Amino acid sequence: MSSPLSEEEQNQLVYSDDPHHPANLICELCRNFYTLGWVTGTGGGISIRKEDHIYIAPSGVQKERLAPENMFVMEYPSLNYLRLPESLKPSACTPLFLAAYDKGAGACIHTHSQWAVLVTLINKGKTFKIANTEMIKGIPCPSRKGYFGYHDTLEIPIIENTAHEEDLRDSLAQAIADYPDTSAVLVRRHGVYVWGDTVWKAKTQAECYDYLFQLAVEMTKLGLDPAGPIEPVQD
Amino acid sequence: MSSPLSEEEQNQLVYSDDPHHPANLICELCRNFYTLGWVTGTGGGISIRKEDHIYIAPSGVQKERLAPENMFVMEYPSLNYLRLPESLKPSACTPLFLAAYDKGAGACIHTHSQWAVLVTLINKGKTFKIANTEMIKGIPCPSRKGYFGYHDTLEIPIIENTAHEEDLRDSLAQAIADYPDTSAVLVRRHGVYVWGDTVWKAKTQAECYDYLFQLAVEMTKLGLDPAGPIEPVQD
Amino acid sequence: MSSPLSEEEQNQLVYSDDPHHPANLICELCRNFYTLGWVTGTGGGISIRKEDHIYIAPSGVQKERLAPENMFVMEYPSLNYLRLPESLKPSACTPLFLAAYDKGAGACIHTHSQWAVLVTLINKGKTFKIANTEMIKGIPCPSRKGYFGYHDTLEIPIIENTAHEEDLRDSLAQAIADYPDTSAVLVRRHGVYVWGDTVWKAKTQAECYDYLFQLAVEMTKLGLDPAGPIEPVQD
Amino acid sequence: MSSPLSEEEQNQLVYSDDPHHPANLICELCRNFYTLGWVTGTGGGISIRKEDHIYIAPSGVQKERLAPENMFVMEYPSLNYLRLPESLKPSACTPLFLAAYDKGAGACIHTHSQWAVLVTLINKGKTFKIANTEMIKGIPCPSRKGYFGYHDTLEIPIIENTAHEEDLRDSLAQAIADYPDTSAVLVRRHGVYVWGDTVWKAKTQAECYDYLFQLAVEMTKLGLDPAGPIEPVQD
Repeated sequence: MSSPLSEEEQNQLVYSDDPHHPANLICELCRNFYTLGWVTGTGGGISIRKEDHIYIAPSGVQKERLAPENMFVMEYPSLNYLRLPESLKPSACTPLFLAAYDKGAGACIHTHSQWAVLVTLINKGKTFKIANTEMIKGIPCPSRKGYFGYHDTLEIPIIENTAHEEDLRDSLAQAIADYPDTSAVLVRRHGVYVWGDTVWKAKTQAECYDYLFQLAVEMTKLGLDPAGPIEPVQD
Repeated sequence: MSSPLSEEEQNQLVYSDDPHHPANLICELCRNFYTLGWVTGTGGGISIRKEDHIYIAPSGVQKERLAPENMFVMEYPSLNYLRLPESLKPSACTPLFLAAYDKGAGACIHTHSQWAVLVTLINKGKTFKIANTEMIKGIPCPSRKGYFGYHDTLEIPIIENTAHEEDLRDSLAQAIADYPDTSAVLVRRHGVYVWGDTVWKAKTQAECYDYLFQLAVEMTKLGLDPAGPIEPVQD
Repeated sequence: MSSPLSEEEQNQLVYSDDPHHPANLICELCRNFYTLGWVTGTGGGISIRKEDHIYIAPSGVQKERLAPENMFVMEYPSLNYLRLPESLKPSACTPLFLAAYDKGAGACIHTHSQWAVLVTLINKGKTFKIANTEMIKGIPCPSRKGYFGYHDTLEIPIIENTAHEEDLRDSLAQAIADYPDTSAVLVRRHGVYVWGDTVWKAKTQAECYDYLFQLAVEMTKLGLDPAGPIEPVQD
Repeated sequence: MSSPLSEEEQNQLVYSDDPHHPANLICELCRNFYTLGWVTGTGGGISIRKEDHIYIAPSGVQKERLAPENMFVMEYPSLNYLRLPESLKPSACTPLFLAAYDKGAGACIHTHSQWAVLVTLINKGKTFKIANTEMIKGIPCPSRKGYFGYHDTLEIPIIENTAHEEDLRDSLAQAIADYPDTSAVLVRRHGVYVWGDTVWKAKTQAECYDYLFQLAVEMTKLGLDPAGPIEPVQD
């Protein structure tokens, strides 16, 4: 793989004084995610789309120590790399991120949050469900052109992990097709992919999902059913 | 809705070099609350009253990234908006905050803390109770013109959540009427509202409540009753 | 109460460019302790002795927002206040801190750590015990002029809480007399007092104790006995 | 012990403007590890090798407050100290770190993480095992000149703790000999040693191991077996 651009042109894609430039935001958000335990051990990843450019953090590097010069830039939808930082590998999540972009996403976040992994172990079926929780209202429901409601049961598909991350693409695409309203897919024993219309929506929705995963794990420890009905108030 | 003030007059309400100005404090405290897990995913909120001005963080935005220019300002008790930041919505908590202001509060904090949510799930009745804990002494007891004591049983009303946040107002007002000494109301499967005479009292009391919620959850995991008596010392 | 010193003399006791000056260290350490959850909600406290001056954080204020001008200074052993910041109250822990100074301490820390509170609830007797844990080696054993060893059983007295913090003094002094090797006393349903020869020893020992409290709680959740023997290795 | 170098020559070994100099990195990483709970109470340690110089943090000091001037420097493989900071003791872990350097490591990290201690208590045998977890892919497998795979069972030796840290050397060396693919050794009731080809690999691998330890503890709380098979998906 090589870029059709000169080195100077490649660098212009990632160097910016604007803190909201994708290359800067990826670095800032990854530091944030590290403190949340989402991207330790070089795990996890993030990608942001800006018009026809997709910015992607590299694979196998410390996410909390990224710099703009580490970013890959891919042209969308041609999928040609415009910028390939030397001696780095593009994220193994790239095909997964593309599945989200094909659905219209503006950004995609992949975390190894333990809460995400634990809900895939507690729930042995094909989905994770949680109901009657205020935080569900932070999750978009495209078919209603709005958000899920407090009384809804949120259902998130769980796909089976594969030995190689890129091999998740087909089952991720299938899960997206089967659950057209979902903006997240859990990967059993692995983590979660979350996407949103913009980087900020992807980030806040990732927080809502992680909150719901944590709540479900803690409810399970306390013998409560996350998807259960609202119980009658006792006197 | 529109403001009777000019844009310059509106901005004078929120721009200040004083770090203790409500518009600055709201930003600082929300960053603090984010690290505590109280306001992730755009959830939660805070409002501060300064004389006849009520400052309110907007709805649906990242609380840890607020800037003074994002603040709504309402005149109290007329309830006319003096400042309406463009393209933002006033907090859905506003009617709830007003219920606290009508009771004489100087500030009100709403969190989605998981500890708050979990105690409303463990306690299936109309209140949460905890007794014989030092931290209870940080909670004010207006009828005694002082604070609760170590040997008191603190009882916090739990109201049922509604599909729309503003619809909580009546039951919140009723809970405040029914429990005149409370400075917090839990909302089942949602979070907690805490208020205080000043912003600092609201903040430190929110910390005391959250500490007690967490302690109650951990006691429950260990098979202990948060509202139980002090057991005799065993030899 | 009033100080025999002029306002300028009083201020000279607390204003210093040296980050290791007690008035500066108390502020810095309290910010540290806040992030550890030891002093939220204005709870907890710290005091440092420098020669015949004892520096004490005030009562009922946010510990993570202290400034040097908030410090009380007491002469030791006369116990006369040399500095009394206006409109602040000396810590209710002061008599407790003095019990530690009378034993030769250089600093004393009081936390409301939930781990400390939980071990006093799990252990219904007069002491908390933990054995065969590496971190025990961080706890001093004065009678051996050294530290406890890995194979020792560390035994920390638990005293019963009282309605008013100052009323703990007699039982704290009794616990210190009964357990001459201890450098910590747990207070049931309240927290812990830890002291050390220097501020740094007090701080690092407080960390060791808190680590042991947390480990004991987590062991209990997992059905393990913190004071149990080392079990034979299974093949 | 004394150094063959002049004081100025000794200082040149540790003072550098390069943030990636081992003496600077040790300080930065120890602050990071402190916030993770790995090195509280003066516990834990870290060492980095740069060519024939081994940099070692001192024993019994606050790891989050280290400065470059606190660093010991040892010549490798002669094991002569080139720099001995006055009034400090070399880390008791030094013989353990050397066992890793003899195996070709570039850096070695020792933590007292509670997750590490808890897995040695849950697992009463000679090893800790975990299988079918994405994060296993962050752990190197030297015999394959690559990394472990998702479907592998990772097996980490657990050695028994001793009263004196230096006495762990023989059993650590034996564990390394018995498990040639491991890059970590757990010490029962104590913590873990992790090493890697470079400081960054040691650090990210320490994060992966800690993640796996935490996941195993949480799985055990939820009644799940960390080393169990992938269960069939339920409809």
